[in-house]
Amino acid sequence: MKQIISIVVKNNPGVLARVSALFERRGFNIDSLSVATTDNPQISRITVTVSADVVEIEQLIKQTLKLEETISVTPLKEDNTVARELFLVKLIATNNGNVWFGNRIYSLCDEFGADILDVTKESMIIELTGNSSKIDEFVKELKENAQTGYRVSKVCRTGVTAMEKGI
Amino acid sequence: MKQIISIVVKNNPGVLARVSALFERRGFNIDSLSVATTDNPQISRITVTVSADVVEIEQLIKQTLKLEETISVTPLKEDNTVARELFLVKLIATNNGNVWFGNRIYSLCDEFGADILDVTKESMIIELTGNSSKIDEFVKELKENAQTGYRVSKVCRTGVTAMEKGI
Repeated sequence: MKQIISIVVKNNPGVLARVSALFERRGFNIDSLSVATTDNPQISRITVTVSADVVEIEQLIKQTLKLEETISVTPLKEDNTVARELFLVKLIATNNGNVWFGNRIYSLCDEFGADILDVTKESMIIELTGNSSKIDEFVKELKENAQTGYRVSKVCRTGVTAMEKGI
Repeated sequence: MKQIISIVVKNNPGVLARVSALFERRGFNIDSLSVATTDNPQISRITVTVSADVVEIEQLIKQTLKLEETISVTPLKEDNTVARELFLVKLIATNNGNVWFGNRIYSLCDEFGADILDVTKESMIIELTGNSSKIDEFVKELKENAQTGYRVSKVCRTGVTAMEKGI
């Protein structure tokens, strides 16, 4: 199963290496990880998405809690969580002329709520935020539409960040 | 200076721990880091924002290139890069009654292009994407407006992901 875990840590030197070593040591599959400081620059939040079974996840949480710099570890439940990811994709025109004009890309962006951040005659950068399955669906649609004169050149994802609903 | 570095790696076990150890070993300040698989599940992209001087950044890049799993390391230049971050914030109502109705939060969200993802009588989750300075500005405005009946309870940032403009 996929599990999102939110870890709050003190910003000690080497903390990210220790947390990721702990997750990677047992061969867990880290689907994504994002880390950034919180409101307090001494404290960071690490959000990890892993594929593992319930027992493995319990062990991981216990071990993470043992690290000196760990303040809290919270496994987030899907039905009570807002989980979002930011996705950037670059398209490159594959034939001469302006392939963007009248292309279905614009209606695809409208449908998915995606924003075009940069566009030239040869390239386009699009941004989409949402949950992982929405992003996967968008990529699929972009690829299916690609014979109309462009190719998907590059994708960047931030990895999931998440927050429990309610108080 | 702040530098965004985009690193493409093979998904070998332990790769994230090795890359982050390399960055943290010399006491570099990692402002944010995000990692997720690319289109190819065997290959991941790590985007790191560090504060360091030019010489230190050159050394970091050289050392990262020496890792067995490194495919490419690209320092991104600000003027030619789309750099975006996703930000979630939770607000909690601090007095009874519906503090949201008529609150300036809605016009703040409009101004910044932020989305309200979840709202109850007691809490609200807002999403904003943009560059780091836009997000900092939004947090500042939210806090200044907070005496109108809520407090900023929690913030989550994904860390920066970035892409060069053009081909």
